[in-house]
Amino acid sequence: MVDVAMVGAGQTPYGTHPAAMKDMWADAVRSCFASIDGDLAPASVDEVFLGSTAFGGGQLGNTAAYLAEHAGMAGVPARRIENACASSGFALRDGWAAIASGRADVVVVGGVEKMNDLTPERKRYWLGVSGDTEWERLAGLTFPGTYALMARRHMHEHGSTHDDLVHISVKNHAHALDNPDAHLRKDVSFEKAASGMVIADPLTLYDCCPTSDGAAAVVLASADVARKLTDTPVWMRGSGAASDHLALHDRPSLTTLAATRSAASQAYAQSGITASDLDLVEVHDCFTVAELLATEDLGLTERGQGGVFARDGEGRRNEGRTTVNGSGGLKAKGHPLGATGAGQAVEVFKQLRGDAGPRQVRDAEVGLTHNVGGSGATCAVHVFGRSVE
Amino acid sequence: MVDVAMVGAGQTPYGTHPAAMKDMWADAVRSCFASIDGDLAPASVDEVFLGSTAFGGGQLGNTAAYLAEHAGMAGVPARRIENACASSGFALRDGWAAIASGRADVVVVGGVEKMNDLTPERKRYWLGVSGDTEWERLAGLTFPGTYALMARRHMHEHGSTHDDLVHISVKNHAHALDNPDAHLRKDVSFEKAASGMVIADPLTLYDCCPTSDGAAAVVLASADVARKLTDTPVWMRGSGAASDHLALHDRPSLTTLAATRSAASQAYAQSGITASDLDLVEVHDCFTVAELLATEDLGLTERGQGGVFARDGEGRRNEGRTTVNGSGGLKAKGHPLGATGAGQAVEVFKQLRGDAGPRQVRDAEVGLTHNVGGSGATCAVHVFGRSVE
Repeated sequence: MVDVAMVGAGQTPYGTHPAAMKDMWADAVRSCFASIDGDLAPASVDEVFLGSTAFGGGQLGNTAAYLAEHAGMAGVPARRIENACASSGFALRDGWAAIASGRADVVVVGGVEKMNDLTPERKRYWLGVSGDTEWERLAGLTFPGTYALMARRHMHEHGSTHDDLVHISVKNHAHALDNPDAHLRKDVSFEKAASGMVIADPLTLYDCCPTSDGAAAVVLASADVARKLTDTPVWMRGSGAASDHLALHDRPSLTTLAATRSAASQAYAQSGITASDLDLVEVHDCFTVAELLATEDLGLTERGQGGVFARDGEGRRNEGRTTVNGSGGLKAKGHPLGATGAGQAVEVFKQLRGDAGPRQVRDAEVGLTHNVGGSGATCAVHVFGRSVE
Repeated sequence: MVDVAMVGAGQTPYGTHPAAMKDMWADAVRSCFASIDGDLAPASVDEVFLGSTAFGGGQLGNTAAYLAEHAGMAGVPARRIENACASSGFALRDGWAAIASGRADVVVVGGVEKMNDLTPERKRYWLGVSGDTEWERLAGLTFPGTYALMARRHMHEHGSTHDDLVHISVKNHAHALDNPDAHLRKDVSFEKAASGMVIADPLTLYDCCPTSDGAAAVVLASADVARKLTDTPVWMRGSGAASDHLALHDRPSLTTLAATRSAASQAYAQSGITASDLDLVEVHDCFTVAELLATEDLGLTERGQGGVFARDGEGRRNEGRTTVNGSGGLKAKGHPLGATGAGQAVEVFKQLRGDAGPRQVRDAEVGLTHNVGGSGATCAVHVFGRSVE
């Protein structure tokens, strides 16, 4: 199996952009290639793996070839991977395999989403289809509702509180203040987040991520090529993935995502690390409770202790045990669905190269990305390191 | 690089089905696993690669996890790959890489499409988005129109005639008579096909494939696992893929698909064969002229000689030089977009195992699948053999 490394990474700012999807994607690719130490042109890559839900659905098909063409990669084999909000997490996994198999030397993995050109009704519809349709969406359950059920059940089983979620929100907003690419950059006090407008009880506005436009891309290379391009490659040490039942009622528990646990254990096994080796993690906090569950499911804390972990500030950048969402996370950095997984990898790339500026995690050696689709129906987890093993 | 083989393959009949997408998919998976000589359960596979355009767009997202669950593979990592009509051709390519990398031992690759629950207007829209939107679709150019331009130009440059296309139509309809899974099973005479209703001059109804519902699936395994499961694996000997500009006006020629030529040359190089070694090919004849171009672009005949190849019956099953679309092809077997590439692999599996019944190609040792997205913006070509090299 060929070793694989990230040698470049870039993204657009996340937010509400007037730019077209293709322009955002081209910007992310430009930024990505500009970050590569050596010489590499987009046209010379072997493959493109693009994650996108093509939100808004269908003004454009054949999206991968279309976007490859518009970023200087016409002719390069390209495919779109759609796994709801985990689309580019899976793109990362499959791009990795293309190189690990020996078929490709250099691939572009990225994602893009243009969410803010739809009406609120259409947005709700397009978000809803990533959950269970037959038992949940058509009965009126939206994603805030789905995660609210998980939050309420966690409180019931483990005594966590809404204040625990508020700690997560405040932390991620604070982290995003240092991230020029973040969608929401504002100082949010505990009092403000604790008294937000209720969206789906117990979740408030401050528990929910925004709907963002954005694009992100990384370049992966085989070990030989990576070492020629840079002295500081960021190695992909482990990849794990899993699926789960779409509908909550088909799962044995509402307070753990089986797909996260399975994906994480695969990624840890492959990389030979445990959760305690992680210096930073970018987790899929589409809602604050999703981060709470992720800290448990990834093994950063014991089952049931996610609330305590948050309350004790264990995820605070350079203060807690492990930096959790040092970028601001989905909550504050933003969540352009298909771009999110690739954007997490961009953050880890910058952190492990020491290029994260004011939000730099000290002595960052090992990082993890956790990208979830739907309410946990799909998950991809990747472990990255400054050293190859 | 680990050698990879198909060990099972199955599909639904193509046509207009009352069944839901998930039921068609489950049927295809059942049929696929029933074809495996040894014992293997869907739940025990390592990954699922599902090709689908999710035609109709968006009643369901997170399609891969949803369909994995409904076919006994809940928990298995699954992703949807969308590359217009080449979706499952690329799923095959990425499923192959998952095994070749050593990450997976057994994967399911398949595709599904439910086209016939939309109104004709919505169908036209959803088909149209796979071509160029800005310069073609929004100007009123549909796929029959796109391929009509290619046909007209080929006639101008190379002296081919509409009668040459009629030969292709008649051949594929004749082939489909022996295929119980074919959408259109009827004896079509030369006179009938030559006098069809004009759809986009010079193409008539008999030059166009139908819009089909259907699903197809294959199981790929690493060499070690494949040999335990069966004495007659069908080896994947080569995989090639490419993209191209979406809009015709950006391409140097209308009478060759650069993506096909590139994908084919990669697949030939990897497998160590040339076009003359092929006993059968399943090519992407969404329109008869697409088959004509494919016979040239795959090297079955010289550039410009596709009309002569058709006229001389060189693609007729067990009569011509190489059997072209012995299944009936997209023209008569049918074209359920995302399922088509996987369905082509199902046909090659049956042929190379000698299980194709009345449509068996004699002494079939080496076969090829050719799966195109849009009007040639994406293409995946695979070479299969009864022997591993």
